[in-house]
Amino acid sequence: MSFNSFGQLFRFTTWGESHGPAIGCVVDGTPPLIPLSEADIQVWLDRRRPGQSRFTTQRRESDSVKILSGVFEGVTTGTPVSLMIENEDQRSKDYGEIRDKFRPGHADYTYWAKYGIRDYRGGGRSSARETASRVAAGAVARKLLAHVLGPTVVIRGALIQIGHQPIDRNRWDWDATEQNPFWCPDAKTVPLWEAQLDAVRKAGSSTGAVIEVIASGIPAGLGAPIYGKLDADLASAMMSINAVKGVEIGAGFAAAALSGESNADEMRMENGKVVFDSNHAGGILGGISTGQDIVVRFAVKPTSSILTPRHSVSTDGKEVEVSTKGRHDPCVGIRAVPVGEAMLACVLADHLLRHRGQVGR
Amino acid sequence: MSFNSFGQLFRFTTWGESHGPAIGCVVDGTPPLIPLSEADIQVWLDRRRPGQSRFTTQRRESDSVKILSGVFEGVTTGTPVSLMIENEDQRSKDYGEIRDKFRPGHADYTYWAKYGIRDYRGGGRSSARETASRVAAGAVARKLLAHVLGPTVVIRGALIQIGHQPIDRNRWDWDATEQNPFWCPDAKTVPLWEAQLDAVRKAGSSTGAVIEVIASGIPAGLGAPIYGKLDADLASAMMSINAVKGVEIGAGFAAAALSGESNADEMRMENGKVVFDSNHAGGILGGISTGQDIVVRFAVKPTSSILTPRHSVSTDGKEVEVSTKGRHDPCVGIRAVPVGEAMLACVLADHLLRHRGQVGR
Amino acid sequence: MSFNSFGQLFRFTTWGESHGPAIGCVVDGTPPLIPLSEADIQVWLDRRRPGQSRFTTQRRESDSVKILSGVFEGVTTGTPVSLMIENEDQRSKDYGEIRDKFRPGHADYTYWAKYGIRDYRGGGRSSARETASRVAAGAVARKLLAHVLGPTVVIRGALIQIGHQPIDRNRWDWDATEQNPFWCPDAKTVPLWEAQLDAVRKAGSSTGAVIEVIASGIPAGLGAPIYGKLDADLASAMMSINAVKGVEIGAGFAAAALSGESNADEMRMENGKVVFDSNHAGGILGGISTGQDIVVRFAVKPTSSILTPRHSVSTDGKEVEVSTKGRHDPCVGIRAVPVGEAMLACVLADHLLRHRGQVGR
Amino acid sequence: MSFNSFGQLFRFTTWGESHGPAIGCVVDGTPPLIPLSEADIQVWLDRRRPGQSRFTTQRRESDSVKILSGVFEGVTTGTPVSLMIENEDQRSKDYGEIRDKFRPGHADYTYWAKYGIRDYRGGGRSSARETASRVAAGAVARKLLAHVLGPTVVIRGALIQIGHQPIDRNRWDWDATEQNPFWCPDAKTVPLWEAQLDAVRKAGSSTGAVIEVIASGIPAGLGAPIYGKLDADLASAMMSINAVKGVEIGAGFAAAALSGESNADEMRMENGKVVFDSNHAGGILGGISTGQDIVVRFAVKPTSSILTPRHSVSTDGKEVEVSTKGRHDPCVGIRAVPVGEAMLACVLADHLLRHRGQVGR
Repeated sequence: MSFNSFGQLFRFTTWGESHGPAIGCVVDGTPPLIPLSEADIQVWLDRRRPGQSRFTTQRRESDSVKILSGVFEGVTTGTPVSLMIENEDQRSKDYGEIRDKFRPGHADYTYWAKYGIRDYRGGGRSSARETASRVAAGAVARKLLAHVLGPTVVIRGALIQIGHQPIDRNRWDWDATEQNPFWCPDAKTVPLWEAQLDAVRKAGSSTGAVIEVIASGIPAGLGAPIYGKLDADLASAMMSINAVKGVEIGAGFAAAALSGESNADEMRMENGKVVFDSNHAGGILGGISTGQDIVVRFAVKPTSSILTPRHSVSTDGKEVEVSTKGRHDPCVGIRAVPVGEAMLACVLADHLLRHRGQVGR
Repeated sequence: MSFNSFGQLFRFTTWGESHGPAIGCVVDGTPPLIPLSEADIQVWLDRRRPGQSRFTTQRRESDSVKILSGVFEGVTTGTPVSLMIENEDQRSKDYGEIRDKFRPGHADYTYWAKYGIRDYRGGGRSSARETASRVAAGAVARKLLAHVLGPTVVIRGALIQIGHQPIDRNRWDWDATEQNPFWCPDAKTVPLWEAQLDAVRKAGSSTGAVIEVIASGIPAGLGAPIYGKLDADLASAMMSINAVKGVEIGAGFAAAALSGESNADEMRMENGKVVFDSNHAGGILGGISTGQDIVVRFAVKPTSSILTPRHSVSTDGKEVEVSTKGRHDPCVGIRAVPVGEAMLACVLADHLLRHRGQVGR
Repeated sequence: MSFNSFGQLFRFTTWGESHGPAIGCVVDGTPPLIPLSEADIQVWLDRRRPGQSRFTTQRRESDSVKILSGVFEGVTTGTPVSLMIENEDQRSKDYGEIRDKFRPGHADYTYWAKYGIRDYRGGGRSSARETASRVAAGAVARKLLAHVLGPTVVIRGALIQIGHQPIDRNRWDWDATEQNPFWCPDAKTVPLWEAQLDAVRKAGSSTGAVIEVIASGIPAGLGAPIYGKLDADLASAMMSINAVKGVEIGAGFAAAALSGESNADEMRMENGKVVFDSNHAGGILGGISTGQDIVVRFAVKPTSSILTPRHSVSTDGKEVEVSTKGRHDPCVGIRAVPVGEAMLACVLADHLLRHRGQVGR
Repeated sequence: MSFNSFGQLFRFTTWGESHGPAIGCVVDGTPPLIPLSEADIQVWLDRRRPGQSRFTTQRRESDSVKILSGVFEGVTTGTPVSLMIENEDQRSKDYGEIRDKFRPGHADYTYWAKYGIRDYRGGGRSSARETASRVAAGAVARKLLAHVLGPTVVIRGALIQIGHQPIDRNRWDWDATEQNPFWCPDAKTVPLWEAQLDAVRKAGSSTGAVIEVIASGIPAGLGAPIYGKLDADLASAMMSINAVKGVEIGAGFAAAALSGESNADEMRMENGKVVFDSNHAGGILGGISTGQDIVVRFAVKPTSSILTPRHSVSTDGKEVEVSTKGRHDPCVGIRAVPVGEAMLACVLADHLLRHRGQVGR
């Protein structure tokens, strides 16, 4: 069972609430002798950190990670790696508005319905703050992948749609993703998004987004048929990220409109290796990696914390109006990019280890 | 670990290849004293059975299920329910074409890459025939849900798009789904699909589809935050079905284009109960059910078995052409409808049992 | 969760009741390309089969195993191996005595208390008949171990005590175990046990026993610290066998009376390899194998099916007397020897696969 | 998979090494609304704390636990409870002796064989210090059991043998366990053990012990047949404690010498409830609790850290002598008493939650 754990052989368990003393995770299953330092993890946490542009929440956190176990003399030992990030900016404020009212579209109501209690401060456990633990675990997964597969493995992501505005894929440039606050691979779309998000932010509204994450350099053979499918685990991984409502592999929903002929990724031999002429499969067939790029896309809904009052109910069963004041992300999809990358890294690390246990000799 | 199992407390393990003596599953975790007979299962298997119209494969199987354990005097005992379906139509034929060549877009290549061996007869383990076991397990899940939650629980599905042609959702009529070979809820779309599929079939081609499955009568509170999310398990469940490339909950990818205002499902009180004005959430918020309909959509790619020759490679590394002759499904999405329903039932049964273990007293 | 499954990467799920149509198991996680036939499994089932001497139950079963999946052209494919054994000797008889009364010392009462129903015919699910499935799974595990580690791996067991009468360990002779109906390694103890069991049988009584199972040729490094310990999994495996009440590794309970000096297994180098001067550890230190013989001992209580009337209660809460007539094992410990061997093989196969997933590169 | 986790629905994951900055655990699956404070946990940690008598290691630790998540306004919320204990007494010393040599009987060698690296400082991950995390998790389990089952649940333990010297069970007095440094229930045995351990301590030697832990007030029906057996999980739990080499339930190994008549725990009705005349079963039949006391016994070997030089080998394959100087426990069995209690509490909490998921309606 895994209410708060993810993965099988490479497995992490996260803990912590938005406004508790700290958050963190325990990463279990890391093989020994992998170089690992706090700096290796911090670099990825810094990418996700809020407050780096006017388009993300202004919560100020240094998100400094501490390694509490599992590393000795600079390398992993095979024992669990415990990571902790102290919460710093638990701004003292009046939660009266949120404490007793359920924000429509938010987990407020369902937590209450399930548990009869919730830590309402900053969203408690359902805060996107939990995703910092995922990014930390993902950093360990990246080290594992590099250690075993070498430097050819690259895992990266991009924002490909905000609201109604998609990028132009013909202009895709990975370098561009590092040069704007959106991880946008299409420089010409950036100003459009800036304008759009400025309007959203001023209106106290929010908007959704679509993210694409890609892993290159993954060998064929990872995954398993039927219920240990690589794509099923990726679907679960991405859908477990806050606010995600859809997941696609490769051609995804567009595959429904394709003919068998156009969907088939034809194969040829090149230098004694199998190569493909296209990648509608997104690098996965029958639940097992093909050796092509693993391509995963997911949709993030607009955050439910908005200024416009919405009809709702209170914990004591009264009809109320709710509007969320104060800092929030106008588009949580932006910060979901490093989170999606991290989950992709974690799933691949897990399946890499599983593969060794599956094929025996 | 679960290479061939699905679920946690309600857990089934499937086994069997397309052309072996039988296929089946072991359903573990069924509570005691639930009425269960072979007829209760057979009725759902009959819905999935191939050869019922010209639009599905002409393989002839009675798909008769036998209960081998776990039922005593007409009710479950709490011990594992073993179900077996004997394979009947293992048509003796020459597999030469497929035995040594990888069909593009098929699991042929990845099985080979992973295991160095594959049962090529009829697709072996990667045959859609495995989904009969899922439908059988789903039948047990339906009995469990009805036993615990009562007759208000309804789980049903529909095909909502074939190729480029979607239904008109304004004409949605559940009764219609039982009156055409497509589980199409929009009678006016049926002739369009018939024409389309006849053309596909004659061309020896294939096409994709989109399926929607819905559960009504599910109480609020099922699921768990973070990694035991109901929607993450549904995403995994649907993505594990053969040929599925995308999964959505509620508004799904369309949520990316929504504003926070329009995406919020506002709440009111009605007869002392919380009700919602809309269901963009698809019945799940923060990984936990809201009490609304659970709405899941998934995309099925066109089957890779097509008549048109495609470039490919052989097991001994030569470039070849492959074309698949003989019976096949022009649109595997059709028969995916009962499979999606079954997976939805199984996930809900599992989460219903988990919920009892989560909330204690 | 695993109510009816055992193992993680090498994992089997058993199903079936004593008097249902069949019993069986699904063995998941078997790597590909391992030679496997029904004969490979049958040979071990034949060892466990009842009715081979006057000292075991006279139930007549051929216990013929069928492989229903997972093997193609004589080797495993990596997909689940489904094994089935049809029940033949479901002697039609009056279960009135047992149906409504709980045998003291038997699972009758606890099944009832838990489930409110039980299949009383022949013990239903709690019958030792379930152990045939374990022996079948163990046969697959033996093939896996031989395939990966080579022919030096030997897993065997012996009965070392019946009632108050232990063997003399100084006379231990593995060959002897094949020459008497008790798997007794000490030929001189055999006549003592025969006399003892004849008396027990005539009195309609029963007696307990102690079994020792040993694996040779297992490399150092299998297992994991803390909760994936090899010895913890062995303890669970043996305690899960019907009627087992105690498990020991190496010196076991006797270790409590040892000093640190005498308990320490001193190490030396021999031909460049670490060797030990003794094996109080039973081949496991800190949950990880040392490379020495893995030595496990377990105690089996006397079967609760006895002729002498005992005070008990009925399903409707009345005080009654119970006495069990008809065939039964006077000492279930005898047939527990091949079961213990099988469980040892399964745990080792599982840990061998896990080890590959743990150490990475 | 669970290399560092224990349990299914009530599940804890421990992390940390003896000489790292901290140790701790994440307790997942705690139902909501259970009162829980640091003091509730500290009281049990204090029982286990070293340095409370001359018979345990003189390491000085306050073992102060911090709750980092999962508790809000004094009660659990259903989210993971993260517990941390900072290491204080990481005495700076020269580990040269141990760093390169394997102590016979210690996990030094097997960790090295498996991982090729080990944190040699104070035993690293294999230090008994890890058991503090178990005691902390056990404290949460106790609160859960009390919350659900009420105050009649009592879980306690005693030391019943040190070296060759057992207690006299006829003098068993639970109150006595709180009045001596051994948790000895037989006051007259205390001076014998004091003398014995003083001698052991002066000789720089060590000795083994046997512990018995008992749970009262547990209802019938917890557990599951076959592989989710309550006794199998208890065996695994106890065997996972450092230095444990044997586990028994109820009559345990002594059951081997019993006849069916004497082993049977006869049943009667008393005030409309089933009662038993004896408890050879140790409260478990067929893997399911009977409603009687759950009785578990386990043997702890002498610690391998002794002053007398022993033959061993070094990490670079040389033959060496090893002797362990400095503080250590002459009888680790003493501090295993609260650990055994904690593991018993955790297994019962887990099975209590599982039971709710098993029986449905």
